[in-house]
Order: sequence, then C-alpha cells, then structure tokens
Amino acid sequence: MKIALVQQKHDSKNMIQNTTKLIKKASTKGANLVILQELHEGAYFCIDEKEENFSLADKYEKSVKYWSKVAKKNGVVLVTSLFEKRTNGLNHNTSVVFEKDGTIAGKYRKMHIPHDPSFYEKYYFTPGDLGFEPIKTSVGTLGVLICWDQWFPEAARIMSLKGADILIYPTAIGWFERDSKKEKNRQLQAWITIQKSHAIANGLPVVAVNRVGKEKSLDKNEGIRFWGNSFVSDSFGELIHQSPNNKEDLAIVDVDFKKSKNIRKTWPFLRDRRIDSYGGLDKIFLD
Amino acid sequence: MKIALVQQKHDSKNMIQNTTKLIKKASTKGANLVILQELHEGAYFCIDEKEENFSLADKYEKSVKYWSKVAKKNGVVLVTSLFEKRTNGLNHNTSVVFEKDGTIAGKYRKMHIPHDPSFYEKYYFTPGDLGFEPIKTSVGTLGVLICWDQWFPEAARIMSLKGADILIYPTAIGWFERDSKKEKNRQLQAWITIQKSHAIANGLPVVAVNRVGKEKSLDKNEGIRFWGNSFVSDSFGELIHQSPNNKEDLAIVDVDFKKSKNIRKTWPFLRDRRIDSYGGLDKIFLD
Repeated sequence: MKIALVQQKHDSKNMIQNTTKLIKKASTKGANLVILQELHEGAYFCIDEKEENFSLADKYEKSVKYWSKVAKKNGVVLVTSLFEKRTNGLNHNTSVVFEKDGTIAGKYRKMHIPHDPSFYEKYYFTPGDLGFEPIKTSVGTLGVLICWDQWFPEAARIMSLKGADILIYPTAIGWFERDSKKEKNRQLQAWITIQKSHAIANGLPVVAVNRVGKEKSLDKNEGIRFWGNSFVSDSFGELIHQSPNNKEDLAIVDVDFKKSKNIRKTWPFLRDRRIDSYGGLDKIFLD
Repeated sequence: MKIALVQQKHDSKNMIQNTTKLIKKASTKGANLVILQELHEGAYFCIDEKEENFSLADKYEKSVKYWSKVAKKNGVVLVTSLFEKRTNGLNHNTSVVFEKDGTIAGKYRKMHIPHDPSFYEKYYFTPGDLGFEPIKTSVGTLGVLICWDQWFPEAARIMSLKGADILIYPTAIGWFERDSKKEKNRQLQAWITIQKSHAIANGLPVVAVNRVGKEKSLDKNEGIRFWGNSFVSDSFGELIHQSPNNKEDLAIVDVDFKKSKNIRKTWPFLRDRRIDSYGGLDKIFLD
C-alpha cells in the first residue's frame, strides 16, 4: 500500500490550501492513504496559553466537512488532526479519519496530553474519552494515535491487541534553539527509538508525520523548531523512510502489511504475554 | 555506581572458574554491582531438547551457596542466572541476586519463556510465578528481568512502577550462521532498540549482558552464534557502553542513577499515563 506523509511548515496565509494541493499531488502519485501532521490547519498554537486560541476550535464542524470533500475528491483515506470543539469550554485534540468516499471512518481523541514549556496542551485539550480504538478503513485497520501518545507503549499495545494493521502518529515535536546539537540529536533519536520499539514489540509498521520549521511564540517564550524527520518503520523497527529535518516533504512510501504477518512468526512475542501478571499497569504507581 | 558486565564464551571445562576470576577482577577495579549472562554456569543447553539436561538443575542449591560465597568474598552485589530446581520435574530460569555480604537479596523467575528453533525453553522452564518484583539491594533497587522479557514493554513498566532504579537483563541471544549480514544486523538493532525504549519510556538506565561465541547443538540443529554486544543505555536511551560481538568482555561502566531523576523532569511520561484506559492489557487479544 502507498502511504503519503505530508510534512509541512507553518504558513499563516495558505496552510490549508497548501495541504490540499499536497493531498492532490499524493493522490496523483498513487497514494491510498494520506497522513497529515498534528494540528495541520494552522500554527501549533499550544506554544502559548492564550484564551483567544480557543476560538480556533469553533470551525471544527466546517473543517470536518472540508477534509471530507478533499478525501472524496482525491479518492484517498485521509488522517487529519483537528482542534475539536465538543461544546463550549470542552475541546479535544482529535484525529478524524475519512474514507475514500468522504464518509467518516472514525475518530481518535488524543488520550495522553502533554504540558511542558512551549507545549501547553493541558490548557487546551481535555484528554480523550474514546480509548484506544483502531479505525477500520478500506486500506486497513488504522491504529491512529497522536504525538505524546508515542511515548507510551501501552497505547501502541492496545491498538495492536485490537487488531490494528499499522500505527500512525500525527505529531508536533521540535527543538529549542538553546539546546546543543548533541542534545537535539539525543532527543530526535529517543523519539525515533521509542516508536520503532512499538513496531518491534507489536510486529506492526509505524508512521509518524511531524511538523517542520520554526514557529514563534506570540508571547515571551522562545518558540519551537519542529524537527521534521517524518518516518516509516517496518514491522521490525527498520526505517524505510525518513524525511529531512529542515524542509517540507511529501513522501510516498510503499508499506507491505504482509511483512507483519511474517515477522510475527519469527518473533512471536504476542504468543507469550503474561496477562496474569500485568495487573499493576492500571495503577499510577505501585508503592 | 560502577557496574560490571561479564560477557563470556562457553568453556566446557572452566566456565565457573572463569566467571569467578572475572568477578574478582571486576571487584578489584571497583565494581559495586556485577551482572552475569544468562545461564552462565555452562552451555546454553536449551539449544537442544534433551532429557538428560534436566539433571543440570540438580546442583541449584549448591550453586546458590557457591555464588553467595563469591559475592561475599568480593564484596559485590551479584546478579546470577541459574537453572532452578524447585522440585522434581519443576524447574525455572531464575536470577538469584546476592548482597555484598553473601545473603540473598531476592530472586526473579523468568516470566516470559521463549520457544523457537534452537531456543527450546518451554521444554525446560516453568514460567515464573513471582511476578515482576524489583529487588532491593545496598546499591539500589534492581529491576532484574531475563532475556525474552526484554521484548515485553509491560515487564519493564511494572518494574519501573514498583520503584526499580535500573533494568537488568541477563541474556542469551544470537545469530544463525545461515542468515545474511543484513538480517543479522537487523536483529541486533531490534534487540538494542527495544531495550533502549524501556529506558526512554521509564526514565531508567538499562543493562543487558549477553553470551558471546558459537555454541553447537549436540543434536542435529545448527547451533547459535551468540552475538555479545552487552550494553548499557542511559535513562534516555543513549548507549554508554557496548561490548564487541565476537569476544569476551569484562566492562566496568559508571552509571549515574541521578540522571533518571533529572530526565523524568524533562520528559514526565509517568505523569500522564491513562490508567483508566489500559484495561485491555491483561487480555490476550481484544477481538
């Protein structure tokens, strides 16, 4: 199957139009599944805590209609990442997945919400209440998770146990300029490693699509240089695609779901899980 | 803290004596904690399914006394890996951990048991019944797991939630000669990646001590070339030591537990786990 990864820079004027053009291009190149980066409709606004940003969620219903049309027009399964307004004062960081015919295949509300300097997500997003449910589509069963979820093996495992064919992470992660080159690389490598490990532990391919480029804070903080490096790992943790760290990239990557079937015969980890002894995982800490 | 990794080749005559000498050497060099490879008292006998191998477990009590003396004599905390006879016809793959004074600090019975060509462990070992309990010692709380456990994020997570300061994996993993160089590297990288991911997800250093060198089957199968590469990862997945793949190695590595304390402030994953939604992890599959 051909998967398109759409890694973009923020563009305050033409972001949505740019994305729309890239989806068309991906479709022309034969992509069956197109994956967009986290909060692809505009800036990564969580860089600041600003009350006016809540109004960005007002257009959620309109956005759903728009991307539905784009999916249908281009005949692709489309993984979006939107600021979902559920009611006044209650919003989620949500991935809506569209079928090729524009219908909604399903949605995932980001379950693990970060909140760290320049990533003030707990201010904006109520943690998801839909759990970890893979989304059935015409191209396969998609284990859609979002960004911070990627650091939690539990999320990947549950998606896999529920029958996901692939794990997908729309993402917004980057560097602070003040950090050394060594520290930046260390963070990038950890980010890749943890996601490759989900591929390995679960025998599934993993796709991460990240933002790229500098986004400034409207406030006093230093902003983020999103590090790109959108990638695809095969189902044993080998990278089969990696985008650059400093520019936009539309990658079309061939992913073979049959590889997962084979790898799980050579490395049959799912056979040997000790479900009688995993009780503590649903506790915060085991004092 | 100084940790010694004892990576050895099989020696049919002097294995235990060799190990004893290396522990003394490690102690002389200032090691506080010495970690031995999986089933370090002899060959990796699980390469064959042979009834006579069960008798190797008969000396378990004697072995415990022996390594207790070695730990005491050298004043080190010692992580062993033994074939435990619990009663006739009931054996475990067990790590006994000794205090510096020779007392038993605790033990861990391998929970996840592999069984694949040349690794016929389900024939020999009853899966552990002690769960994932870190072992308190004078050098820290040790999350001791064994080999195949390393592919299961659940084991690492539970050890971490129970207060482990470090994850430790005595291991016996290797290549088949028939595999290509590329395939061999792919397996080695997956093995390192999955363990680095436990460091990252849990903010803990990880130590793996593997066997090295070719061990032949007594039976008809092809044997295993154990790939060495014993390593230490810091608490954000960066390798701070890696042993060679083709020879014995006594490595003494300085590991700073304070690094974990700091990394968990920068990357506070434990803060954000969704314990309300991890219920499915104690199921085999979620149809």
